[in-house]
Amino acid sequence: MPQFPPEVYALIDAAVAEDQTFNDPTTQAVVPPEIRGAGMLRAKSPGVLAGVEVGLAVFRRVEPVLELEALLADGAVLAPGDAIARVAGPAAGILRAERIALNFMQRMSGIATLTNRYVRAIEGSSARIVDTRKTAPGHRYLDKYAVRAGGGHNHRYNLADGILIKDNHIQANRFREMGLRQVIQLALERASHTIRVEVEVETLDDAREALDAGAHIIMLDNMPADMMREAMGFIGDRAVVEASGGINFDTVRAVADTGVHLISIGELTHSPPALDISLDLEFE
Amino acid sequence: MPQFPPEVYALIDAAVAEDQTFNDPTTQAVVPPEIRGAGMLRAKSPGVLAGVEVGLAVFRRVEPVLELEALLADGAVLAPGDAIARVAGPAAGILRAERIALNFMQRMSGIATLTNRYVRAIEGSSARIVDTRKTAPGHRYLDKYAVRAGGGHNHRYNLADGILIKDNHIQANRFREMGLRQVIQLALERASHTIRVEVEVETLDDAREALDAGAHIIMLDNMPADMMREAMGFIGDRAVVEASGGINFDTVRAVADTGVHLISIGELTHSPPALDISLDLEFE
Amino acid sequence: MPQFPPEVYALIDAAVAEDQTFNDPTTQAVVPPEIRGAGMLRAKSPGVLAGVEVGLAVFRRVEPVLELEALLADGAVLAPGDAIARVAGPAAGILRAERIALNFMQRMSGIATLTNRYVRAIEGSSARIVDTRKTAPGHRYLDKYAVRAGGGHNHRYNLADGILIKDNHIQANRFREMGLRQVIQLALERASHTIRVEVEVETLDDAREALDAGAHIIMLDNMPADMMREAMGFIGDRAVVEASGGINFDTVRAVADTGVHLISIGELTHSPPALDISLDLEFE
Amino acid sequence: MPQFPPEVYALIDAAVAEDQTFNDPTTQAVVPPEIRGAGMLRAKSPGVLAGVEVGLAVFRRVEPVLELEALLADGAVLAPGDAIARVAGPAAGILRAERIALNFMQRMSGIATLTNRYVRAIEGSSARIVDTRKTAPGHRYLDKYAVRAGGGHNHRYNLADGILIKDNHIQANRFREMGLRQVIQLALERASHTIRVEVEVETLDDAREALDAGAHIIMLDNMPADMMREAMGFIGDRAVVEASGGINFDTVRAVADTGVHLISIGELTHSPPALDISLDLEFE
Amino acid sequence: MPQFPPEVYALIDAAVAEDQTFNDPTTQAVVPPEIRGAGMLRAKSPGVLAGVEVGLAVFRRVEPVLELEALLADGAVLAPGDAIARVAGPAAGILRAERIALNFMQRMSGIATLTNRYVRAIEGSSARIVDTRKTAPGHRYLDKYAVRAGGGHNHRYNLADGILIKDNHIQANRFREMGLRQVIQLALERASHTIRVEVEVETLDDAREALDAGAHIIMLDNMPADMMREAMGFIGDRAVVEASGGINFDTVRAVADTGVHLISIGELTHSPPALDISLDLEFE
Amino acid sequence: MPQFPPEVYALIDAAVAEDQTFNDPTTQAVVPPEIRGAGMLRAKSPGVLAGVEVGLAVFRRVEPVLELEALLADGAVLAPGDAIARVAGPAAGILRAERIALNFMQRMSGIATLTNRYVRAIEGSSARIVDTRKTAPGHRYLDKYAVRAGGGHNHRYNLADGILIKDNHIQANRFREMGLRQVIQLALERASHTIRVEVEVETLDDAREALDAGAHIIMLDNMPADMMREAMGFIGDRAVVEASGGINFDTVRAVADTGVHLISIGELTHSPPALDISLDLEFE
Repeated sequence: MPQFPPEVYALIDAAVAEDQTFNDPTTQAVVPPEIRGAGMLRAKSPGVLAGVEVGLAVFRRVEPVLELEALLADGAVLAPGDAIARVAGPAAGILRAERIALNFMQRMSGIATLTNRYVRAIEGSSARIVDTRKTAPGHRYLDKYAVRAGGGHNHRYNLADGILIKDNHIQANRFREMGLRQVIQLALERASHTIRVEVEVETLDDAREALDAGAHIIMLDNMPADMMREAMGFIGDRAVVEASGGINFDTVRAVADTGVHLISIGELTHSPPALDISLDLEFE
Repeated sequence: MPQFPPEVYALIDAAVAEDQTFNDPTTQAVVPPEIRGAGMLRAKSPGVLAGVEVGLAVFRRVEPVLELEALLADGAVLAPGDAIARVAGPAAGILRAERIALNFMQRMSGIATLTNRYVRAIEGSSARIVDTRKTAPGHRYLDKYAVRAGGGHNHRYNLADGILIKDNHIQANRFREMGLRQVIQLALERASHTIRVEVEVETLDDAREALDAGAHIIMLDNMPADMMREAMGFIGDRAVVEASGGINFDTVRAVADTGVHLISIGELTHSPPALDISLDLEFE
Repeated sequence: MPQFPPEVYALIDAAVAEDQTFNDPTTQAVVPPEIRGAGMLRAKSPGVLAGVEVGLAVFRRVEPVLELEALLADGAVLAPGDAIARVAGPAAGILRAERIALNFMQRMSGIATLTNRYVRAIEGSSARIVDTRKTAPGHRYLDKYAVRAGGGHNHRYNLADGILIKDNHIQANRFREMGLRQVIQLALERASHTIRVEVEVETLDDAREALDAGAHIIMLDNMPADMMREAMGFIGDRAVVEASGGINFDTVRAVADTGVHLISIGELTHSPPALDISLDLEFE
Repeated sequence: MPQFPPEVYALIDAAVAEDQTFNDPTTQAVVPPEIRGAGMLRAKSPGVLAGVEVGLAVFRRVEPVLELEALLADGAVLAPGDAIARVAGPAAGILRAERIALNFMQRMSGIATLTNRYVRAIEGSSARIVDTRKTAPGHRYLDKYAVRAGGGHNHRYNLADGILIKDNHIQANRFREMGLRQVIQLALERASHTIRVEVEVETLDDAREALDAGAHIIMLDNMPADMMREAMGFIGDRAVVEASGGINFDTVRAVADTGVHLISIGELTHSPPALDISLDLEFE
Repeated sequence: MPQFPPEVYALIDAAVAEDQTFNDPTTQAVVPPEIRGAGMLRAKSPGVLAGVEVGLAVFRRVEPVLELEALLADGAVLAPGDAIARVAGPAAGILRAERIALNFMQRMSGIATLTNRYVRAIEGSSARIVDTRKTAPGHRYLDKYAVRAGGGHNHRYNLADGILIKDNHIQANRFREMGLRQVIQLALERASHTIRVEVEVETLDDAREALDAGAHIIMLDNMPADMMREAMGFIGDRAVVEASGGINFDTVRAVADTGVHLISIGELTHSPPALDISLDLEFE
Repeated sequence: MPQFPPEVYALIDAAVAEDQTFNDPTTQAVVPPEIRGAGMLRAKSPGVLAGVEVGLAVFRRVEPVLELEALLADGAVLAPGDAIARVAGPAAGILRAERIALNFMQRMSGIATLTNRYVRAIEGSSARIVDTRKTAPGHRYLDKYAVRAGGGHNHRYNLADGILIKDNHIQANRFREMGLRQVIQLALERASHTIRVEVEVETLDDAREALDAGAHIIMLDNMPADMMREAMGFIGDRAVVEASGGINFDTVRAVADTGVHLISIGELTHSPPALDISLDLEFE
């Protein structure tokens, strides 16, 4: 029985509250309390599993006497029909919890599946697929967990995790006649020694300036692959390089082949199609 | 300043907490507190707006002295470049709140946009596009609100909102030799007189039996359009009819033309692609 | 060990916090921790039981090692002296939890008892006793549950559960020259197909107009029984009919005999006298 | 704008959540957002007002732009028809908040009214009417506030507020051969010097023993008035005396006339009939 | 497994959330999940133990399968090296929870240790060491519990626990020409009979006036020991006497020897040095 | 009116709840509601200010009509008597909020003052004083904020902020025959490219091994200053160096002069003596 951070339990309770799980006229009217069910959560489409333990935690929250067993672990590759977990006990409890459990698992497995598709697209390259802070509000922990389940890596968990200087941060310093270099130096000077400084650039000149100023990580934003390759030529291993902005399945391989270290994809968490999972139930 | 249900404020606070909005080394290091910004939230892709007031509530939560003004209302059709809302005040506050505000607005506008595409696809028919309970956990209110902003209608808000007898509910009564008809009668008898009874059927025979048993709403699940048309032939206005299951852009028009009253689409809330919205910021 | 919706656990925790259950100088000063008690929760007055499991959940919350056993189920008819549940374990824990557990059980059993008195008063009629939204704030789930334990039925759980057009809603449309009929039609047109429309009327003419306009449920508000009977004459089974307003033990039978389907009684949840229940405790 | 303790805001939010105040198909369908209403909260029965500011806080929570004005203060004596508070602004917001605001005010005014009836019954005596810990879970602060509004006084707010030795506490010490006197001495010795020790007794002998042992407050439990008078004879002002148990309108005057200082009545908060209050609304 | 009030669990969850216990890249990267550890919490400095069960509750919260055993109870005198509790199970869980568990135990044991030093300094006198309301926000229950573990006693738990008239309360009544005596009389008259009235005085004259007016407890604020002794001469046992203000290790004995009943020390909870406790861990 | 993260408002509400701020018999009995007070928060000892806005937020929470003005900003150097902030309005509200507001400000200013004493002790060196995760549970944000107000810098905010390999993490890998070097390499390989890897070492050999393995930050734990100087000789600027363990006012200067970059002091947040601040109040 794994344990989750407080915000995950709060999210499960919010889901139970908003669905009025304990106020279900359907099971109250037509499912006698003594009926027991035994069911299997199964994949309906191919994909990568994430969230099985969160799904089981939903069933446990709604009906603690249910017998619950995960048959596959997060990260497992799923073929249609694969058995993911077994649920058994009072049928009314299973039926009341089903939708919420699936809502968690389908979103998380959807993220893992989409991530994995990108990870496989760049297999063999030295780049890593990373996520962004473009997560569903309240789902940061689960969304980022699902990215890892899909073989991706996590970028900043939140604002506190590192310095990321974007164009707006540079612009905000124009009034005191500070440019890219000066802002980076200010960040390096003021921030804790334990934190890394990343800088977003859109041109090769800016990439050079950021490198010279001591940026630890350089984000090449919306650059064509050729330009990225040129940037890698002069950056090499002097900084970590992240490719970002508008990268999709058609372009990700070319980007990976430029030698960048990280490729960040907002789509992983802002637009993941749900993976189809369903519950097959039998009654005793 | 619109007011939201408690769970929306709780969700905003959860998002602020998980993003550590008040613990941002980037603005702490390089954005002087006296710098002010003025920005415009703008659509980057065509779509339908939803969530503008939630987005502004995020900015207000993070920095209450910001001047905030919605320029368009939810439901507005967006062309790329359209100005949605204006934000002005301390630059550091704007920059810290930006990502969370956009995360809300992009998901909600994504739902409204997807919904609207379905609504337009069946324009002229008498059918309505409705959502399902397949929402992101904790987002039920916002997801269903966004469906309405896109021109769709809401199905059950939660379990308490009505009786929906699915195949599993029927199966759970086999042991006492009750079939579709008996289960419907049981539901009608036991449930409050104020509640409607909906039944999911997969065959025409079951549709007839449900109708005869007195079901108020009949859900035709995964039926070809031809079979739906046949069902409408004998159901007519004796029950509300909902088409459900695997309906997509290719098939929705044909389904609508069968005369069904409601077409439910899980995709609206379980797989909405985020709408691209961004913040253009200038500094003083 | 039954499970409750999140708001019930939140209410138990609120009760524990407001009573400072863990900060009790009385048991701290005079009850040695090694003393064990064994007690019986017993009815002191005749009535109907509701809330036994909530009461036990309070004891469990305060002292998890207590042995707890319900001897009667909610809905049981109680005679003075009847044993409801057994509690055994550390005496200090039992004594600290006692008052809160009883506060829950006495209110809920009070509601069940009052409801049951109305239910018995109309026995043999075809009417049902239903509750209202006049519940103690924060107690909606428990209050409505107790009504069911007493043999009553639930009306709307909350605003989202259905449309109920009252006189004020009609008045709010006078400015655009819409009357009862037009407002009902508007509601039928705009609301989801899955929702029922109820209308409150005070005259027979309005009842007729509501019926013709297609209202699913007609609430006869504050009508004398004779007028209700007349209304039933022309409504018959064309709509569900609810009697409401100022009905008490003296009048409820006459109302039930008019043939109305539902009789709603605000008193059930806004003014229930607590049922007397107490804890008999012995020490080892 | 008065401020309340955190648990009152939490209770208001719980009430708003359980009533789905922001998800109201009735006002959504038939009350145009531009319609404004102006209303008066009025007493429908005679009584004593309590909770007017809590009621207004509910309206403010649901629709912050409402103009709200209390016309009477808590504690005011109400005749049928008396105007309590004025509410004006968007009609939909008023209508959605109305029921919850009234649920708070009707319970609290019911408590104040019942309390006041007891207070008036003993007018001229030196006794005070006090409440108990038999409050609705989660309503301790509001219930006890309402008792004060009705002219009553508060007994212990919670367990932490004082030592109250009941028969069970004495019984729990039998095993070590300690009786009433020894348990009181133990309490006086172990408890903080700042706390008072109250003892429940059922016989005159026990009352004497408690007095001799140094109890600060003696609760005469379920004693006939004559016996109480006799107890007062030897206690005099050497201890505060509380009469408790089964006192009602028929007996309270006789009890007060015995000279006891406090008369505690559980009914005030466990069985208060709601006071009838309603909202008269007009539209512009 | 002891149970705590709701606010303690809320504080543990807040600590887990702020430390991102479930998002630990260190154990994720280098501690394989199958590694088990067995550890001992040990005192590193001499002191008095408090908080062992809270510390274990933190471990349980983070990893429920851990085996946890307290080897000493709160109040135990600790020598450097003493084993306090045993922790065994998955190493990653132990390492993630360690810091938070120690933060609770070190603060609480620090308070118990400091309290105990004062208690021992006045051993043999009839005075008691008591705490104040100067606790860390959110830690009231735990801070006051730790004072008791150190042999101290608790003063008011919170504002509701008693009346304490300070100089400002007297000053606030000057406008209506009421002085110390009148304010005390007002308090005695208006407050519940069950509550004690304490008064803060700085001169012997005021002490006499407070005594005559009927104050139950007199706080001698910032008086030299000689003056306190003089006050005790005329107060004797007619009131409880509390010494307060600027008392430290150098002066506490002299204060105790004046015969005062209570000596309150804010330092116990506003400035306790943490007691050094650490976790020795071995791996299997 | 600055805004704080959600956990700070939750902590203020917890403090208000635990102190029963709205249930104060003292002000209820003796402070007439119409009395107004005007007060000044003043330093009583020399120090550095932190938390003034949090203190004012407490007053605002308890009584929103108070006029509040900070006269000094956090970080200001305080001499005894210095005016920190002005509070004016209803006297009862000021008196009820005073203790909680001071509890926040005295702890935070205590941390800032202690930090500042260390900062001044190393003035002129290139080292920075940094904090640890040894904060009061629930106070992480405020404690670390106060360190910055005192001129210190923050180390990891929480576990998620970076990798810190301690001796226990190395020991946990002995079973697979991995030593310091291998564990560091594992961390560098598995962790996100955006995160830094810090390693705790106790010997010069381990420091060399950590450096060679690529550690970004090396923590010299409990080393004498001479050994630290030797370590700096071969580390130079190839890694950030943190001195840690048992450093106090007597030794901190010598440590700073070794050239280390960071000196971490647990005492700053686990044992800060409260700074004496009080409220001078006058009444109108």
